[in-house]
Amino acid sequence: MSATATVMVALGDRSYPVAIGAGTLARLGARLQELGLGKRIAVITNPTVAKLYRATVERALVDAGFTVTVLEVPDGEEHKNLAWLTFLYDRLVDARLDRDCAVVALGGGVIGDLAGFTAATFQRGVPFVQVPTTLLAQVDSSVGGKTAVNHPGGKNLIGSFHQPRLVWVDVQTLRTLPRREVQAGMAEVIKHGAILGPALFALLEEQLEAVMALDEGLCVEVVRQNCAIKAAVVAADEREGGYRAVLNFGHTMAHAIEVLTDYRAFLHGEAVAIGMAFAARLSVARGACPPTVAARIVALLQRAGLPTELPRELVTPTLAVAVAADKKAAGGKVKFVLIEDIGRVRFEMLSGEEVLAHARA
Amino acid sequence: MSATATVMVALGDRSYPVAIGAGTLARLGARLQELGLGKRIAVITNPTVAKLYRATVERALVDAGFTVTVLEVPDGEEHKNLAWLTFLYDRLVDARLDRDCAVVALGGGVIGDLAGFTAATFQRGVPFVQVPTTLLAQVDSSVGGKTAVNHPGGKNLIGSFHQPRLVWVDVQTLRTLPRREVQAGMAEVIKHGAILGPALFALLEEQLEAVMALDEGLCVEVVRQNCAIKAAVVAADEREGGYRAVLNFGHTMAHAIEVLTDYRAFLHGEAVAIGMAFAARLSVARGACPPTVAARIVALLQRAGLPTELPRELVTPTLAVAVAADKKAAGGKVKFVLIEDIGRVRFEMLSGEEVLAHARA
Repeated sequence: MSATATVMVALGDRSYPVAIGAGTLARLGARLQELGLGKRIAVITNPTVAKLYRATVERALVDAGFTVTVLEVPDGEEHKNLAWLTFLYDRLVDARLDRDCAVVALGGGVIGDLAGFTAATFQRGVPFVQVPTTLLAQVDSSVGGKTAVNHPGGKNLIGSFHQPRLVWVDVQTLRTLPRREVQAGMAEVIKHGAILGPALFALLEEQLEAVMALDEGLCVEVVRQNCAIKAAVVAADEREGGYRAVLNFGHTMAHAIEVLTDYRAFLHGEAVAIGMAFAARLSVARGACPPTVAARIVALLQRAGLPTELPRELVTPTLAVAVAADKKAAGGKVKFVLIEDIGRVRFEMLSGEEVLAHARA
Repeated sequence: MSATATVMVALGDRSYPVAIGAGTLARLGARLQELGLGKRIAVITNPTVAKLYRATVERALVDAGFTVTVLEVPDGEEHKNLAWLTFLYDRLVDARLDRDCAVVALGGGVIGDLAGFTAATFQRGVPFVQVPTTLLAQVDSSVGGKTAVNHPGGKNLIGSFHQPRLVWVDVQTLRTLPRREVQAGMAEVIKHGAILGPALFALLEEQLEAVMALDEGLCVEVVRQNCAIKAAVVAADEREGGYRAVLNFGHTMAHAIEVLTDYRAFLHGEAVAIGMAFAARLSVARGACPPTVAARIVALLQRAGLPTELPRELVTPTLAVAVAADKKAAGGKVKFVLIEDIGRVRFEMLSGEEVLAHARA
């Protein structure tokens, strides 16, 4: 076994550790014993992940004395909805799980959001454990307590904040992740470096290829630094009161791109990469940072194999509407995150038209 | 306008006032302005309450500058479910409400639970205001942050804790409440006095008839004392970690009665009255209190027109199963609240069989 690391998310009596290691999946049961949970655990996963890791996780939990119910939801964002949530409630009831059960999410962001919301609302909330198996989930979505399902009226429209009791990251699971998803996850890694992690950003500039080759020691260190950055932001602003919006760097444009392409053209991380490159150039145009800063961000994204150009066919008045429709908008202007330097950002209130004008420039 | 009173529910940054008055419904809008909410409010109510108070509340909110969407859910516990929750989500989306909206519950416990869970989960949680119009809701369910919907697998099986920003009680609304519901609400009032409020209990012993005749000054004072007791318990144990179980006095048996009669024979308060009388007599039998204490509780319940005898046809082995199936059960034994004196209780772990044996005695 290689290096392990732990990051604490400091939220008072809702604090929890993010434990990062390589080859640690088989030790999950022993760790859960220490949390003082009830005897019954529901593992929520999808068939793709189940094929790879269900046996290991189930064995680990059973060996530690837990009674395990595994529930599979089909793979894909389109299943993160109220219908599948209801399916999960029904199965938990069928399995006679009560308020003493715990829910484990085994998978990526979709599973984490759906299982998290299930845990947040079953029996008015039961303990929840995140076992993220994608890079995006390991460095971002599994930390912070956001849970949700989609609604025809909007993504993540129904949800809650429900902090996990533990996040258990095994970076070896990244080996089975499609290359494109490793790249997409890297967008959030670069984002964390760009907004708040100059040391992380420098590490990536030095060793990006080794990280993306999934060197275990490097991966543990990169995930640790990401979770530390995310944890600090979440600890300062658990329920997205304001400061947490620094995490939206690149995301205002990314959301607009995703809406305009019906979530089909790009993975979330790819849209974020385009959004960050856009925000970086916009930062230069508005005098927030020198061109060298934007160039470093764009260069790193490109080295990670990520797109950095806004598709020209999206640059229409509809883009202005989509940008201004972002749910973080207030009074017609959107709170845009601009970069001042690697590791430092600021907010500017911009209209959809101002953003579009820059896209046209 | 008669006397008003305010009780603070002390929960750190989730603290909120319970404002109690008579004839205060028309001033709700002005009070909401002070909370710094967004401009758009969804009022969730039922047709029965809407006919009586919708116009007053809508006018109060509109006059205060709010844009108001009123949503009606049919009256009755059978509508507190996932289907109607989904209906509410859809209507909120149709009305283009975003994370800056607030939800007002105008009605009794069913509306409070359903609207509260809607507020807890729409956009990962929006501000919530309780305007309880039944005695039960005014003295009990609107304070404490419990929200839920039912599931075929159990009552309140899906839900969350979501504290309101304000509870606005107008005791004049009790004038339109059916007499049987005033009586049923009085069961929880007597409970609060019995477990933690000797002064409240004495006040009831002196003036129960005047309270039930809805003397406004007395009602404000009785609701105030009830909310103060409930608030103190909730502040000490927000998420039902243990101590909050004192509120279950009479409720273990009440839940069993409700399940065995399919929730049809008794209003919740009536089942609680029977449960409290049972628990009081059980307390005597187990040496927890002298017979005089139980006699005072039973006498007060009877003066309020409430039932105090367990229907003999329910005293079968099924009762033991129903008692032990209570969700507060652990390890086959149920945490029973016994009374030691007016204003003092203790817990005892009892099996369903032990409870049945007493019912047979």
